[in-house]
Parts: sequence; C-alpha cells; structure tokens
Amino acid sequence: MNEQHFRLAKTLVNDSYMKQAEESRKRREKLIRKLFANRKLPKDGWDEVTIRLFLQEIASMDSNNFIGNVGAGEREARVFSNIVRERNYSLGHGIGRSGDISAIQPKAAGSSLLAKLTECLVLDAIKIAGLESMKAALVVPVATGMAMTLIFLSLRTLKPHATKIILSRIDQKSCIKSIQAAGYESIIVDNHVIQDEARTDIKSISNWLELEADKILCVVSTMSCFAPRAPDDIVTIATLCQTMGKRFLFKLLSNLYIYIYIYIWLNIVWTDVFHIVNNAYGVQSRQSNVWIESASSKGRVDIVVQSTDKNFMVPVGGAVLVAKRVDYLMKVAQIYPGRASAQIHIDLLITLLQMGQSTWRELLRQREELFPVLKNEFSKIAYKYGERLLDTHHNPISMAMTLDQLEAKGFPVEFFGSMLFTRFVSGTRVVARKNNKTKVCGIDFPDGFGAHCTNYPHSYLTAACALGMTRQDIVAFCDRLDQCFQEAYKKLELPKDDTRTFMD
Amino acid sequence: MNEQHFRLAKTLVNDSYMKQAEESRKRREKLIRKLFANRKLPKDGWDEVTIRLFLQEIASMDSNNFIGNVGAGEREARVFSNIVRERNYSLGHGIGRSGDISAIQPKAAGSSLLAKLTECLVLDAIKIAGLESMKAALVVPVATGMAMTLIFLSLRTLKPHATKIILSRIDQKSCIKSIQAAGYESIIVDNHVIQDEARTDIKSISNWLELEADKILCVVSTMSCFAPRAPDDIVTIATLCQTMGKRFLFKLLSNLYIYIYIYIWLNIVWTDVFHIVNNAYGVQSRQSNVWIESASSKGRVDIVVQSTDKNFMVPVGGAVLVAKRVDYLMKVAQIYPGRASAQIHIDLLITLLQMGQSTWRELLRQREELFPVLKNEFSKIAYKYGERLLDTHHNPISMAMTLDQLEAKGFPVEFFGSMLFTRFVSGTRVVARKNNKTKVCGIDFPDGFGAHCTNYPHSYLTAACALGMTRQDIVAFCDRLDQCFQEAYKKLELPKDDTRTFMD
Amino acid sequence: MNEQHFRLAKTLVNDSYMKQAEESRKRREKLIRKLFANRKLPKDGWDEVTIRLFLQEIASMDSNNFIGNVGAGEREARVFSNIVRERNYSLGHGIGRSGDISAIQPKAAGSSLLAKLTECLVLDAIKIAGLESMKAALVVPVATGMAMTLIFLSLRTLKPHATKIILSRIDQKSCIKSIQAAGYESIIVDNHVIQDEARTDIKSISNWLELEADKILCVVSTMSCFAPRAPDDIVTIATLCQTMGKRFLFKLLSNLYIYIYIYIWLNIVWTDVFHIVNNAYGVQSRQSNVWIESASSKGRVDIVVQSTDKNFMVPVGGAVLVAKRVDYLMKVAQIYPGRASAQIHIDLLITLLQMGQSTWRELLRQREELFPVLKNEFSKIAYKYGERLLDTHHNPISMAMTLDQLEAKGFPVEFFGSMLFTRFVSGTRVVARKNNKTKVCGIDFPDGFGAHCTNYPHSYLTAACALGMTRQDIVAFCDRLDQCFQEAYKKLELPKDDTRTFMD
Amino acid sequence: MNEQHFRLAKTLVNDSYMKQAEESRKRREKLIRKLFANRKLPKDGWDEVTIRLFLQEIASMDSNNFIGNVGAGEREARVFSNIVRERNYSLGHGIGRSGDISAIQPKAAGSSLLAKLTECLVLDAIKIAGLESMKAALVVPVATGMAMTLIFLSLRTLKPHATKIILSRIDQKSCIKSIQAAGYESIIVDNHVIQDEARTDIKSISNWLELEADKILCVVSTMSCFAPRAPDDIVTIATLCQTMGKRFLFKLLSNLYIYIYIYIWLNIVWTDVFHIVNNAYGVQSRQSNVWIESASSKGRVDIVVQSTDKNFMVPVGGAVLVAKRVDYLMKVAQIYPGRASAQIHIDLLITLLQMGQSTWRELLRQREELFPVLKNEFSKIAYKYGERLLDTHHNPISMAMTLDQLEAKGFPVEFFGSMLFTRFVSGTRVVARKNNKTKVCGIDFPDGFGAHCTNYPHSYLTAACALGMTRQDIVAFCDRLDQCFQEAYKKLELPKDDTRTFMD
Repeated sequence: MNEQHFRLAKTLVNDSYMKQAEESRKRREKLIRKLFANRKLPKDGWDEVTIRLFLQEIASMDSNNFIGNVGAGEREARVFSNIVRERNYSLGHGIGRSGDISAIQPKAAGSSLLAKLTECLVLDAIKIAGLESMKAALVVPVATGMAMTLIFLSLRTLKPHATKIILSRIDQKSCIKSIQAAGYESIIVDNHVIQDEARTDIKSISNWLELEADKILCVVSTMSCFAPRAPDDIVTIATLCQTMGKRFLFKLLSNLYIYIYIYIWLNIVWTDVFHIVNNAYGVQSRQSNVWIESASSKGRVDIVVQSTDKNFMVPVGGAVLVAKRVDYLMKVAQIYPGRASAQIHIDLLITLLQMGQSTWRELLRQREELFPVLKNEFSKIAYKYGERLLDTHHNPISMAMTLDQLEAKGFPVEFFGSMLFTRFVSGTRVVARKNNKTKVCGIDFPDGFGAHCTNYPHSYLTAACALGMTRQDIVAFCDRLDQCFQEAYKKLELPKDDTRTFMD
Repeated sequence: MNEQHFRLAKTLVNDSYMKQAEESRKRREKLIRKLFANRKLPKDGWDEVTIRLFLQEIASMDSNNFIGNVGAGEREARVFSNIVRERNYSLGHGIGRSGDISAIQPKAAGSSLLAKLTECLVLDAIKIAGLESMKAALVVPVATGMAMTLIFLSLRTLKPHATKIILSRIDQKSCIKSIQAAGYESIIVDNHVIQDEARTDIKSISNWLELEADKILCVVSTMSCFAPRAPDDIVTIATLCQTMGKRFLFKLLSNLYIYIYIYIWLNIVWTDVFHIVNNAYGVQSRQSNVWIESASSKGRVDIVVQSTDKNFMVPVGGAVLVAKRVDYLMKVAQIYPGRASAQIHIDLLITLLQMGQSTWRELLRQREELFPVLKNEFSKIAYKYGERLLDTHHNPISMAMTLDQLEAKGFPVEFFGSMLFTRFVSGTRVVARKNNKTKVCGIDFPDGFGAHCTNYPHSYLTAACALGMTRQDIVAFCDRLDQCFQEAYKKLELPKDDTRTFMD
Repeated sequence: MNEQHFRLAKTLVNDSYMKQAEESRKRREKLIRKLFANRKLPKDGWDEVTIRLFLQEIASMDSNNFIGNVGAGEREARVFSNIVRERNYSLGHGIGRSGDISAIQPKAAGSSLLAKLTECLVLDAIKIAGLESMKAALVVPVATGMAMTLIFLSLRTLKPHATKIILSRIDQKSCIKSIQAAGYESIIVDNHVIQDEARTDIKSISNWLELEADKILCVVSTMSCFAPRAPDDIVTIATLCQTMGKRFLFKLLSNLYIYIYIYIWLNIVWTDVFHIVNNAYGVQSRQSNVWIESASSKGRVDIVVQSTDKNFMVPVGGAVLVAKRVDYLMKVAQIYPGRASAQIHIDLLITLLQMGQSTWRELLRQREELFPVLKNEFSKIAYKYGERLLDTHHNPISMAMTLDQLEAKGFPVEFFGSMLFTRFVSGTRVVARKNNKTKVCGIDFPDGFGAHCTNYPHSYLTAACALGMTRQDIVAFCDRLDQCFQEAYKKLELPKDDTRTFMD
Repeated sequence: MNEQHFRLAKTLVNDSYMKQAEESRKRREKLIRKLFANRKLPKDGWDEVTIRLFLQEIASMDSNNFIGNVGAGEREARVFSNIVRERNYSLGHGIGRSGDISAIQPKAAGSSLLAKLTECLVLDAIKIAGLESMKAALVVPVATGMAMTLIFLSLRTLKPHATKIILSRIDQKSCIKSIQAAGYESIIVDNHVIQDEARTDIKSISNWLELEADKILCVVSTMSCFAPRAPDDIVTIATLCQTMGKRFLFKLLSNLYIYIYIYIWLNIVWTDVFHIVNNAYGVQSRQSNVWIESASSKGRVDIVVQSTDKNFMVPVGGAVLVAKRVDYLMKVAQIYPGRASAQIHIDLLITLLQMGQSTWRELLRQREELFPVLKNEFSKIAYKYGERLLDTHHNPISMAMTLDQLEAKGFPVEFFGSMLFTRFVSGTRVVARKNNKTKVCGIDFPDGFGAHCTNYPHSYLTAACALGMTRQDIVAFCDRLDQCFQEAYKKLELPKDDTRTFMD
C-alpha cells in the first residue's frame, strides 16, 4: 500500500478512518526503515502483523515469485506442494551461491536480504548477551558439530601442514566427530577433578603446544557442558594459543640457525595455533560470555560457535559463528560448496524480530534468576535421599547430584534417567561410576564416556536450567524426581529376580 | 517496502538484483492500484504471494493491529488464541456498524475496505456470468435462506400492510421457512407437470395477484432447483408483478368512486408487488442468467439472491444480493442490526482475486461443457436398467432418472440414496412416488414433499453438474451408480424378510 | 495413529522411544474422550498440537474430505482456493440444515460434531462465569443485534397478536434496530438519573405492562452498557414480566364477564410477557451474572444473549443464547432458515479448548482485579484537570469522567475522542451535553442520542475495563489521556479562528 | 479419534452419519498402515487433510509436544515464536544424534519416524524414475555441493593416503569447491569437443588412473549439466574405476618383487578408486538414469548424489544419496557430526505423499514430452536470427543456441542474459567465446570458465526443460527471447557511445 493506493482506497472507505490506517502504516514502515538502517534488534519485538507483512515482502522479491516470471533454468524454485510453499512463505531459492554461502543470489534478492538481516540481528543479540567485542556473525544451516567441521576445513588452507587438533576433553560424541570428520587427529586432553568439578588440564595443553605447535591446527575449548565439567579455563587457553605459537617459532629459530630466513618465510603463519570456542549453549549465560570476552582481550579467540536452537529457541539445525576478524568467517562462508537451506534463517529472523531487545534481555534475565532456584530445589531432593549436589560452581547452566547412596544400595542407577523419561521428564542424564570401556570414533575411553574425565568418583544425575525453563517446570521436575526416588527405594525392597524389576 | 526501504536494502544486497525485485514490486503495486481503480476482477488471477501480501496490508489497517494501540472500549478485537488470530489474518472487528451492515467502521479501515472490495468484485463476477444489468451487490454473512428473510423484513416498511408472500412451489424447507421466519404467510402455488417437468403455474399466480395484490408483499421465484422442477417462468412472473400491481390499483379505483383520492394517497406504492428471485446456485448457468436478464428488462425483478458457496466455491455461509436499484440493497443493509462476521468476505475476496476473470470464465465454460457429458452418461445407466432420463430440458444444472422399474420390482427406492452415500457418492437425492403426507412449517403437503408438485408420476434419482465437477467425477459417479443398481437387483433376488436386507 | 500403526512404526523407529510416544498419544486420546464424555471445558487448556490434531480429525469427518468422495449435488463444499481451504481446515459445509440451524448434517458429521461441542463448552464457560442455572446454549453465527431479531421472530408464533416490545432505553442503534428489523414497534422507556447514574424507570415499564400486556411481546433489558447508564434493574423487571402477564389476564376477566371462556381459550398464553436480556459483554462481570441469576430465580428470564467476541476474545460475528428452557432456544434454532457459516464455531471451539477452565477463570479474575485500578487511574486524571469521575457504581465494566470544565472553557468536547484515536487510543466515547435532536430508526430523540436518558447534566468521556485489558494498557491509556488534556488546554489558549484549530 | 471416541461422538451426532465418517477414517488409517508396511510412495497422492493429520500425529510423538512434559536438559525444542512453531508443525528436535545423522532420537520418535519414512519414499521415487538397482537412500540437509564434500570426507577413512580426486571438467564452482573443501587436490580433466558437444576425455582419465590410482580417492562424473557439455560417459568411467584399481595393484606387484606381501596387506583396499556420480538434477531424465544403471551393472558406481529441490520441487537445501551398498551411505551418515535440521525432510515427505506414484510418473512423463517442444521452439528462434541450435543430443535437459551472428555484429553478448532477466526470464546462461582467464578455487582456467572445455568455438545461450516447466512457459520464454533479439539488433543500429547502451 503506497500513497497512491491510500488515495484510491479513500474513495472506497471514509477518508478520516483511512488516515489513521495510513498513519499506522507509516509506523510500520518506520520499523522496517530502522531495521535496514540500524541492522540491530528492534528495541521492542515486532507484532505478528508486521512480521508476516515483512516476510511476504521478502518473499515477493525472489524471482520465482515475480509475476509472470518464466524459468528456463534447471533450478527455478518451483514448489510442487502448496502446503510446502505456504510454510516456506514461497521462498524456494535457499541462500548462498556456489561460490559462497553468504553470497547474494541474483535470482533471489529477497532470500539474500533475509540472510543478511538475520546475521546482523543475531550478531546484535549475541553482543547484548555479552560478547560485545565481536565484529561479525555467520549463520550456517548446520548444527554446532558440523559447523566445527566446516571451521576446521576452512582453516586448513591457513595452516596446511597441521594434522592435529587439541580438544580439552568433553564427553559429547559430536565434538570428537567434528574433528575426525574434518580429517584431523584429535588430541584429547583429559580433565582433572578439583573438588567435584572436572576442570581443564592447562599444563597438559601447554605441553602439547610446546612440543608440536606446528602440527596443531587449533585448540578447541568448550564453554557450555554438562556438570560436573566446568567451562574450560578459556582465558589461559587463549593466552597459551597466542604465546605458544610465537614461542614455538622462536624455539625453531634458535635451533636452526642456518635455515632461519627460509623458515620464517615459509612458516611464520603456520606456527599460529588457532583457538576455536564451542559455546554451544553458552550465549544464555552472562558468566560464560564474560570469560570469552576476557579471553578474547587477553589472548586469541578466533571463532566462537553457538547453536541457534539452544540459545534462540528455534528448531534444531543451525549454528552461529562470531568472530572479531571478519576474514575468518569469510573463509568459512567460502569453504561451503554451493547453496543451502534458508529455513534456519527464516526461523531465526522471525524469532529475533518477535523478541526484540527487550524480550531477549528479559529471557536472559529470567534464566539467571531461575538458575539458583533450580539449584536450591534440586539440592533439597538430593538431601532428602542422602545424596548431595556436586560442587560445580563454575558451571552456570548445568548441575548434578550424586546417586551414590542409591547405587550403594544396589540400584542400577543407569535406569534412573529412563524412569524420569517415562514420567515425562526429558533432558536429564545419568552417568554411573562403574562404566565400561568405550570406544568413541576409534578412541578408547577405558573408564567409560560421560563424566568428562577418567575415574570420576561419583555416579550422578544432571539437570540444566536453560533458556525458556519456567518456575513451574522446576516444581514439576523436582516433584517427579522425588517420586522416582521413592519408587526406586520401593523397588529395592522387592525381591530382585532380574533387572526387569527396575525397568517396569 | 517503499522506495526508501529499497534504497537502504541496496546497501545490504547487490544493487542490480534489488532493482529487479523493485521492478517486480511495482508490478504488484500496479495490480493493487488497478484493483482499487477499476474495482473489477483482475484479468488474470493474482498469485498467492500477492494475495497474502495484500491480506496482511489489509489487516495492518485495523486499529487492533496498530502498533502501540490501546483499547479502552468494550470491543477491541482482542483475540485470545494465536491459532484463531492467524487463521483470521488478525482481522477481528467484523464488518458493518450498528447502523448498517455495509457501513464503514472507524476502528477498522482494513476490514471496511475488504468488505467494499469484495462487493465490487462479486458484482463484476456476476455480471461476467451473465447478469449484466445489475448495478450493485450486497454480500451478507448469512446463507441464502436467511438472506431471503432479511429481504422480506426490509421490504416490510415499503408495504407495511402486506401479510402474504407468493412462492412458486419449491420443495426445499428453507425457502418456506424464510417466509415464515419473516412473519409472513406463504401462498404456495403448486407446479404442474408438462412432459416430465414441474413448471410454474402462471395462471394461479396471476389469480392470486388479481385478488389480493395489496396483501401480497412479493412473489418469490426460484431459478435453480432439483429436477424435475424447471426454473420458474421468470419472464412472465416479472411482467405479472409489474402490471398486476397497477391493474389491481385501477380495479380498486373503479370500484370505489368516493374514496378515490384518499386511497391513491394511501395505497399507491402499496399495491406494488415485489419480485424476489432465488437464484441460489444459478449464477453458474448462463441460461438461468439470460432468463433473469430478460425478465428484468421486460418486467420487474427487484432483488436476485445467490449463494456464495455454491457459485464461488467458498465454505457455506454467505449470500450475494444483486439488484438494479441500489436503494433496495441499502434497505437490506440497513435492516441488519449490528455488526457481522467478516469471514465470508475474507474467503470470497481471496477466491475472487485468485480466480481472476480468466479462471472464472473458464470454470463457467467447463461446467457448461460437462453438463451434457453427465446427462449422456447418466442416461446410459438409466437405459441399462430399464429406466429413463426424465425430460427436464429447462433445468440447466440438475437432472433426474426414473427409478420406476426398480420400484416396480419391489425395491424400497428410498434407500437408494444412502446406498450411494456409503459408496462415497454425496449429493444425489431420491424421491419416491408413494410419499406420505408431510407437514412443513405448518403447511400440509398431502402427497409428500420433494417432487415440487402434487402427484408426480415417477420415483426418481437426481444428480447435478455443478461448478467444480470434473470429468473424473462423472466417470466415478456413474460407475458407482451402476454398482448400486447391480447390488439392488441382487438384493431383490434374495428372500426378503424385512427391510434390513436393503440396508446392509 | 492406532495400535497397528504404532506396531508397524516400531519396526522403523526404536521400540522403547516409540512406547513413550504411544503413551503420550494415550494422554491425548484421554483428553478427547473426556471432552466427549463430559462436554465441559477441559480443566486446563489444551496445547496447540492437540487442538490442531483434533481439528484435522474433525475435518476428516466431513464428506467433502472423504477420500475418493464424488459429489453429485449442487452443494459439495468444493473450495477453489487453497488459501481458503487451509484457513478453514478444509471444512466447507457450514452448520445446520434447512430445517434447523442446530441440526446435524448428514454430509458433514465433523462440522456437526464441532457445532455441538462448541455449544456444550460455551455453556460450561458461561456457567463458570456465574450463570449457573442455565440449561442450554445456542451459538448463532450472527452478532448480538441480529440475534435479538431472531429471538423476536421466533417468539412471534408464541404470541402472534403482539406488536410491541418494551426497551429500557439504551443508546445503541443496534438495540433499537433489532426490534424494528423484526417488525415490532419499540416502546423506549427513558431512564432517570439517580446521582450520576441513568437507571431503569421501573414504574414506567410497569405502567406499560399494566396497560397493554396483551400487545407486548417482551421486555428487553440490558446488562452491559456504557456509563453513565447502569445495568437494568433486572430483578424487578423479571418479576414484573412474570406477574404482569397474569395480572393483566385477571383484569381482562373481571371486566369482561360474558366473553370469559372464549377469551381464556384465546389469550391465556398470549398474555405472557417474555423477558429477553441483552447481556452483550456482561458474561465477563460476576456482578452482572449474579443479578441475572437472581432475576431468573425470582421472576422470568427467558433468553440471555451475549456476544462471542466481547466475552471470549474471538473475532466479531457470533452470539450465544442461553436459557433455562431448552424449547425457547429450539424455537430460535428452528426459525433460522437454512445453513450458516461454521466459522464462529471454529474460532470459539479453538479458543475454549485453548483456554480451559483454569485460564478462563484467570482471565475473569484479572478483569475484576483491574477494574478498580483503571477506575483509580482514570479518576486521578479527572481530578488533575478539575473534572470528576461520575458515580456509576452499578456499572461493573464501563466508567465515565465529566468533561464539564473543558467544555465550560469553550473546548468542543466532541473532538476529544478523535484526539485520543489519533494518539492510538480506541474505544473511548465522548457524549456532549448540548446534543442536537437526533432521529434513530424513525424515533425522535429530542435531546440527542448517547447518554441513555434525556437531559443528562454532564458532558463526559467513557472508558471500559474489558476482558483482556492489561495493566500496561491502563498506564498507556491514562498517559495519553493526560497528553490530550494538556493539548486541549494548550489549544484553548490559541486564538480561535475556526474549529479546525481543534482538529489538527 | 479411536473407536471409543466415535462411540461417544455418536451420542452427540446422529449414529448413521457418524458411521460414514468412521468408514472414511478407516480408509485414512489404511493409507497410513500401507505407508508403514510398504514404505513406498502411495499409489495415488494423499489429500491435504490426510497429510496435515499425519503431520500432526508425527508432531505429537516428539517429547517437546508431550502433554505435561518437563524439559530439564539444555536442548528441549522450546520454540519462542508461535509463527515459527506453526510453520514447523511444532517439530523442533531436528534429526539425527551426535553419533549419526540417521540415528533415532530418544526424545523425538516423531521426527525420527519422519526421517526414516522420507528416505524410504525418496528411494522409491528414485527407483521409479529409473535407478532401479539402488538399495538405500540417505537424505542430507545440505545441498549437492556440500553433500559431495561429506562423501569425500567419509571415504577418507577407506583410503587414507589418497590426496587427489579426478573431476571430469564441469564449469560449476561448487563442484570444484566440494573437492577443495574436503581437503583434496582436484585433477580436472578437460572435455574435448565432438561435433558441438563437450564430452568426457576418457583417455586422459584412464592415464591418470594408470599413473596414480593409489593417490586418487575417486572419480567424480557428472550426469546433469548445462549444454554444450554432455553427461559424462559414465559407463566407461565406471568400468575404468573398477578395473584400474586392480590393474594398478598388479602393476605395483610386478614392479616391486620384494615388498609384495607387505604391500598387499597394506594397500589392497587402498588401490580402490571410488566412483561418485553427481546426478544433481538428473533424476528427472530417464536417459540419464539408464546410463547410470548400465554403468552400475558394468562397472562401479558407489554413490549417486541428487538435489532434492531440482528433482522433487521443494525449496533448496537438501540432497539425496543413493547407493547399492548400504555401508557407503552409513559411512556418510556417521561422518556427519551432530544433529541437523529436519526441514528438508518435512518438505520432502509432504511433497512425496502429495504426489504419490501416479503424479510423480506423470510429472516425469510431461517433462520428457516437453523437452522436444522446447528444442523445436528454441531452434526456430535461433534460425530466425541466423543462429543455430548446438547439436548436443546427449544432453537430455539442457540445450544451447549460438550467439555467433549477434557477436559478429558487435553486440556484447554477455549482456544478453540480463536482458532476458529484466524481461522476467530467469535461468538462462550466456557464455561468450572470448572469455578472460579466470581463477576458480585457485585453479587457472586460461580460456575462461563456463563452456566446460578449452576453446569452445561458439558463444551461446542455454535453456533447460526441467521438471515443472509448462507449455505456456515455453511459449512465453520464446516470445521474450524473440523480443530480446529484436531489441539487440535495434541497439546495434544505434550509435554506440559506450556499453551503457546495451544495458538500458
């Protein structure tokens, strides 16, 4: 509806009523103008009408939606099913081009615009959450694990002779697989237990760097993880990465007098050790962001990777990469061969526009507020059954209680999680102490996989206070947890024929 | 997206690609401009993107969707459920005002615009279908029967002493009820059978008008009906209505010398006999429209009523009134007390925009083309089982075959319809000759209700070729009909214990 | 998904995960079973997934959605536009049959089920809100005004000689028009002002009944209205209606010795005076419901009419009729000729399922809680500008403040409402004291129309605290009201050339 | 709706009408049962109601949609925006697990089921299209290019010492990048021109294999490409891959007497040369599939990759991998680290269910039918302007005409494509003979990039007849092409100041 339309419409509908509608339209146009001009989260979330209008506008800018367009190519975004077309707002061209996943598509100005805006908004949201020094964001339509792989692949050209990646141990398969998928060997540095917490073994990382900085592509640190692991000591790692590369170079130089100039010329960038941070669901924790910022100012932090679903409450499938140096992100964008789905961007853009700054801040605030509430309630249940909360005070999202008493009484604690699941509690995780030797991606974990370190002295149950959890969730959760304990103890009193007793 | 937005967007997305998007937007804006300027069906149907965009624009013009609007009244179009809001495009204010169902709502410029446009487009569509002389259309969110009632109520002020309405017999309850609901007595003029067809008894109507034109509000004629009834002889009825009123007045005058001036003054308008045409699903038949046009030029046709669902393929619930005189429609609009649902208008507007002139014409053409096809196939089945097609050549939509042979053999033909229904054929209708006395709305039909006339000499089954029927439908229908006949004859051979045999 | 499906699905997806899904499905099936069995609002609102699933199930039960169905009739719910089909959940047959708007449709078991359930749930919701003694509900797809007309039309057969309806004055056009549309003469009984409140003139109603009970179809009382009118003194009216009919009969008997038997035989039921309550948006007020219940137990209350949009937060277009006697509602259902749109029922069913008892109660509670808040804030603004809140303590929803000072200073107060509207405040209403003679539906209001009584001594501005208003709304409203006052006073200081000054 | 529900519903709605609804439900249940049991495309496409119902059922099986579910983990598929939730049918968990992209998710039985079914159906569709010998399909939520990269990464473990990949030259960046991204060196084997066609240089490939089979991971052949390139001579390549590996091994053995046993033990599998077929949009061509099948039976074809959007008319973003050996696909599934978006699967499942076998076959048939039509019309235009159709008879989808005359007259043919684009023709491609040296992914193309071979002797314009193109598209396309030629010749007559003349 442009001015001319309004003028014509006024001949159908009373002038003065129309004027107010026009006034309101100007307000909406102003919102859009601001969005284009500022490229930041709107102060307050947009209403649904504006969002739907905007999406339709975007859709109308792609060539497959041009009126009278004729496609004479092999990819013309023809959509067979109207159910599919409708749910995709008639957007069909995806994002990116063969050259670059963040390139503009000539045939799809709308989709391209959508992708650019999404990146601007998500960068702003991440800055608001605390990663203030970041300069650019790249949204990739693959989840965190695959995003890590893409990063490793893109860094290869910068350090072609490197063959290894250091991973401060985190017991999630996809972390290890992301390294393997990229064709690198992983050096898994085990954590050590301090009080109850599994913490980064800085010394060991330092040793590896000292020995083979030229062979090591990067160190991967993890900022969001299940208790009892703590987020990595990222500040020290960042400093190590920055200094070790140089130290290693000097070591080389001092040893090899004669090849000095040649070597410098050849290797100077190649002794760089990159530092990639897996911040999967860490955006939602202010503490986690503070640590990253600090690391980033004191040492090197090259790319920080986060999940879109866990931090921004959209369906699974995307990751956001942020960095201080745009060129690193461009490397990743350019490594991606061909086009990709735009769906992650659509969901993310809608969500961020609907949130706006105010709701985003409010959601973050609520989570920080509820974390101690969950901790408190959770520990009460622990206390009631002779267990205790593990002291993992560095972990700002996940927590764990021991299941030692239950285990001691002979209960097979590994069933405890599925007992909760059948009571409609999802997301908890039980790790039993006496775990069998496991092989993950060809790597042996003699003491089992799950506790993030060898010989963790407790069996435990984790729970997390993640974005979107409510006070009612906490109450219901602790209530059902209580019931499970009761039932477990009841079962212990029954004659035990076989494990089936515990499964019913 | 206005020019400024495009200018800003060009800083995000390549200028030249954006230019084409802008070009395309101008095409869309031109479509909207044309719609506002011409107020006619677009030449070709709009694409979905344009329609959805337009609906969002309309929605954004209602006060409940104004950004930052605060409602301090009792009706603020607050919608609780987002499922409901979404399916209604956030439109909540309905249409009309307490004064008038077609009045503009101050709070809802968008809904008002939508209502006006719908009426313009539907008028155009009806003109294209053949009712070319009509000057105005009124869409009412009530189905045909209630729309008739509204018309009768609105005419009351024009002829306050009238108490009766003549209805050329049509055996559909809602036709009789629409008269009763308005508080009028119905004079049902039975049809007589000519060949196989039930046709208007003009003489009888003429007699009634001769006798009591001052007591008769209007004659209701019906243009779309189940065979074996034919559409009414509307041209003659229209002429009668025009002339009888005047003749009756002169008769009065000649009888009553002394009261002549007083009477003229009192009654002159009141001897008018209105003529209301129930054209429920007649828009789709060119023949039906030709007759109405002819009647309208030779005599009086005051308001023609048609169903929105049957003619325009939208969900049930609305009617369109068209007339040559705008003031009659305004009377109806003004009789409606209060606001009404906008849903009929939304569905109709979407449908008409999506059809455009070209598809609308094509749909009409297809139906005309398929009618003889169905007739032919249907008569083949009739022939196969010793029945015959009733000769109802005036009826352009519905047809019927006898079930006399089947009945003669002792089959309870009244079950034949449900046999078809359980074979997933809907919409046929069986009328058995030996019908019991029925009472409808307090009126006795001694010979049963269904055949549109007393003592119709056949039992029969009807079928219709309505808008949207396809060639495949015809094939499938006749196929299943064939199966039903076979099964019926098979059952006849079984020992008959009770009627249940025929029901299984 | 039935058991067999789950069994087969388990061969595709791990058995134990599927089990939990099956468990969850049983929970959903239980919800549906409870709904069918109890026919009451679910205790807690249903989640969206269940609602959408249920709607799809309902849709699949209509013949137009039967797989392989062939339509051979004239109304087969074919829907042209997939946009329309999708938003209507493929439901196309509407509700009701020619005989009765609440009749079951053979072709549309789903739509019929939907209509029945909606009526059950809405009855339950209304009972929860306070009208506990009601026995049945009828949802009609027309708004309050037209619903009143339908009631009057349906009562005609019960008292055919009546020609008048008593309306305790309410200055809303549709109330007067609903009487006129039904063809009745309205006796408008003016209110008298007690303190600041316009209250029912019981004496006058009583006199009319005394005089002409046989001519009077019903008394219409109004329970929700703009201040300064109070809800009618419904208890006294109900008692009058009950007793007056009988008294009038006895009076007739005492006067007319000779015709006594004949008269009894003719008139006994016809001296009944029905009592229809217009409770448009009164459901949301507990007080209003208490009064109706009390009236209903002490006297006669035949049908109570309420708007669906204002009480249940759905788009405009429907009304709910509730009554103690089912037969009165059946009369109304049967007067409606033909089918009607199902859209009102769809929106209402979705909303009520999504609310459930708990949210419905909570919404009602919140409104009761906010009413004094608005009153307080509103009166503060009044005080600030030398105006005062009118003392209308019987009105539980609407309130008003004087604009006398502003008017006294020469400000044309009638512009004050549009000043608020341009500041995006909708729903307020200004009534100026010095109103011109107005004609509404042919009835003269010498002192203007709006204040519900003749010679109301103040100019005033109304505001309402209706369902769905929030605390933020109140703050924003009072803030903008404050600004308007400031601006009004600023304008008063300007040199006054013409009224345009006040409009800018 | 289970039996109990129907029983209860029958107390609300007439028994016999309900029976038919129940009958219809059974038909739907049968469809679902068949789908689960057969795991093939339904014979006829499902109707929308069934599809939507099925999607809701699927959604209801994921834990985030369990009624009363409490999430205590970090990924609970909480969705902030209801717009997002609605368009994703409340599915939020994506697909796969950290271990495997095709693994079943404990929390998301519905999503898992959806993923499995999609793969079954897409395999069936591909078999119907002609690739009958394929045994398994894997749908990956990344487009073709990235899918190729994933394949290369997954093959690495099978042949760890390989460093090179042979690519029969195809001038599309993503093909080259997919190799580079995986960290391999690409050996691009130029095509030679036979008649007008750019055809596989088998000799050169054979030489490379002869020389370095142990270093070569795989040969990539391409079956769908822009004219004038022909699909690769896949049968010969397949045979080469099968035999060359072995021959190379024997060569090694004959050369190296002494290390013979050691070498066999170490390398036997490593001299395998895989053969990956990029069949991007080739599924739609029967000819292309015949060649692949033939290659697959005569030689080795390990994995065939196709785009989901180009072959199945869904939005961009997915690829389908099919293979005879399931273990190769499992390798790819297992290399993918972490979860992925389910959106590709959702769109694909909806589309395939809606198509069914019959429509899928019909779509394929129509394309085969229209290809010669386009060729004919296209060549007419060529002839009209003194150009000619290039003889590229092996290419079953794309075609090209020379632009030599136009170029000879001095027209800058590289603008011809954008002239078409501004006339709303998308998808054509102009390659000018005199191209500059280009660098793609670090590889020099001295004679330009685009014609798939060095020194192609014509400038040309391509067009494709892809799935979904209609007869009207062909007419409109040729019409606008004609106009462009006319305009181009008109511009040639103008005085040429600068290139801008050609751009306007």
